[in-house]
Amino acid sequence: MSPSAETASGDDVEVPNNKSRVTVVGSGNWGSVAAKLIASNTLKLSSFHDEVRMWVFEEVLPSGEKLSEENVKYLPGIKLGRNVVAVPDLEHAVRDANMLVFVAPHQLMEGLCRRLVGKIRADAEAISLIKGMEVKMEGPCMISTLITEQLGINCCVLMGANIANEIAVEKFSEATVGYRENKEIAEKWVRLFSTPYFMVSACQDVEGVELCGTLKNVVAIAAGFVDGLEMGNNTKARQSAAIMRMGLREMKAFSQLLFSSVKDSTFFESCGVADLITTCLGGRNRKCADAFARNGGKKSFDELEAEILQGQKLQGVLTAKEVYEVLRHRGWLELFPLFRTVHEICIGRLPPTAIVEYSQS
Amino acid sequence: MSPSAETASGDDVEVPNNKSRVTVVGSGNWGSVAAKLIASNTLKLSSFHDEVRMWVFEEVLPSGEKLSEENVKYLPGIKLGRNVVAVPDLEHAVRDANMLVFVAPHQLMEGLCRRLVGKIRADAEAISLIKGMEVKMEGPCMISTLITEQLGINCCVLMGANIANEIAVEKFSEATVGYRENKEIAEKWVRLFSTPYFMVSACQDVEGVELCGTLKNVVAIAAGFVDGLEMGNNTKARQSAAIMRMGLREMKAFSQLLFSSVKDSTFFESCGVADLITTCLGGRNRKCADAFARNGGKKSFDELEAEILQGQKLQGVLTAKEVYEVLRHRGWLELFPLFRTVHEICIGRLPPTAIVEYSQS
Repeated sequence: MSPSAETASGDDVEVPNNKSRVTVVGSGNWGSVAAKLIASNTLKLSSFHDEVRMWVFEEVLPSGEKLSEENVKYLPGIKLGRNVVAVPDLEHAVRDANMLVFVAPHQLMEGLCRRLVGKIRADAEAISLIKGMEVKMEGPCMISTLITEQLGINCCVLMGANIANEIAVEKFSEATVGYRENKEIAEKWVRLFSTPYFMVSACQDVEGVELCGTLKNVVAIAAGFVDGLEMGNNTKARQSAAIMRMGLREMKAFSQLLFSSVKDSTFFESCGVADLITTCLGGRNRKCADAFARNGGKKSFDELEAEILQGQKLQGVLTAKEVYEVLRHRGWLELFPLFRTVHEICIGRLPPTAIVEYSQS
Repeated sequence: MSPSAETASGDDVEVPNNKSRVTVVGSGNWGSVAAKLIASNTLKLSSFHDEVRMWVFEEVLPSGEKLSEENVKYLPGIKLGRNVVAVPDLEHAVRDANMLVFVAPHQLMEGLCRRLVGKIRADAEAISLIKGMEVKMEGPCMISTLITEQLGINCCVLMGANIANEIAVEKFSEATVGYRENKEIAEKWVRLFSTPYFMVSACQDVEGVELCGTLKNVVAIAAGFVDGLEMGNNTKARQSAAIMRMGLREMKAFSQLLFSSVKDSTFFESCGVADLITTCLGGRNRKCADAFARNGGKKSFDELEAEILQGQKLQGVLTAKEVYEVLRHRGWLELFPLFRTVHEICIGRLPPTAIVEYSQS
């Protein structure tokens, strides 16, 4: 990664118009890995401009290092590629791009979108790698919908096993691109992300794919609670299986109640059962929830996030709250005991052991 | 369980014709648990005759005890219910029954069916709890089809988490009844098996349900191999997830290639993903495969079955062989690397570590 001031491929260089220009909006753990994947492909594929801009929310670390110089905070030791250009100015970062990759923390997305209105190309296409939803008075709004509504551009999603550090070291992973109508654009995103160790396929069900990616983190929190409780290995295996099976059931029911267009077959894509199993057996949602249960709920998620995630927010905990709001608002609390119980444990209303009482029924 | 000679509800007692009479054909571990479930319901439901006959392949144990007296071999310490009548004579066991529950070892089924021709009621309905298939020159034949073809009667299937010992001690489990056309019969089987701790539902896809129940045992063998290898916990979790996700993919592809009628939605029933996860995280297929890998493949499955299963055959190992025969015969070996690798490890052609090499790709 090079700070933009030092790169040879700066603003003044003319590039052919038919080449796509990619900007990654976000530079956390997953954003940096996405930039790495993309940058390896733009070098190889002639339809893309080599340079990948990455908008970096500028932070000066205690050591005096700037995040735009090396992503020492979120992905230390991983080379993103010399063609990744860190750009601290948002407007500058997105100005020329016709392919925008959104991977910022989802609680920042509304504000980000507001800042981007009128600043992006009219022909831009977007993809969201963000898990979560905005809960508003009029109902839940998926992040892809937020982007489309606020910026007036089409938005696909890419969801898969959220274990960025494993992808960073090139362990095999899978993901699914969800799209609404334009299959060609979906296939372009597939080409941009696919590598020999990152297998991507397309699926015409944007809400289904996005909800799989989002809701699986809530189930992973439940699986983590089970892992952190004192139980024999056999009981633990039984309980984990029960959690995954009930989690899948609630994920599917919740998605199809919210969007009747969500297809059964989407759950067989990489973003579905496969990712659910991977995330429940590994990943940071499971890990932090395990630590939460081990401490008997006496250490809050805020504290654990500070310790284990260097202050990044745990997606599953946020999503559990959002899902709970939807359930409460629609009168569905009784229909989704697992989702409900996870949130009530997260906020300390129930003890971590409640996950087991629930999953026996 | 009472030996038939001593029961008060023997042959001479007249019962109203409209009450269904149930016979369980098979008395192993799972057969005994099935008899226990059924017997608790026939006492409660007025549409069934109280007595449940269970055909017991008579064995005299080294201790001098007869299996027809107490199922000390396969289910010691578990009371099956006083209305379960053990009958060593096959013809006598099935004579009056209009509901036949098949739960014998599947390699005995062809012979058993031949012995039953002309001995059963013309209006009998059957259900098969048997996992596996008969591989013949003309192609694979599911056990339910074998029963229908040889005996000329309709046959449903019941498949679910195959952890009989847990159901025996009344831990919560789930199962699916697969049926071909007659939904009323399927619902009658559901009533006969359902208890507060055993949740049963019906699904119109007999081949799909039967193949889920059958093929998941092959995946569980693969999951067991992974567990038995020397690996860090994180790597193991990753590998288990990879095995389950590839296993699900091969289960679905194999089922739908063999029977185009198999529905996607069947994999969301209890017999599908739910049972796959449960079986891969627990159960005896996983357990024995774990032991096999721990021994570096130096102890054969025959030896392990003798040690761990008191000589019962491991279903997944038999099924892996059957599936391999189908793959080889149809030229599909390249399409199903997981199924293929499991069999090649089971027969010693590949080392247990081959499961990992495969699941990385």
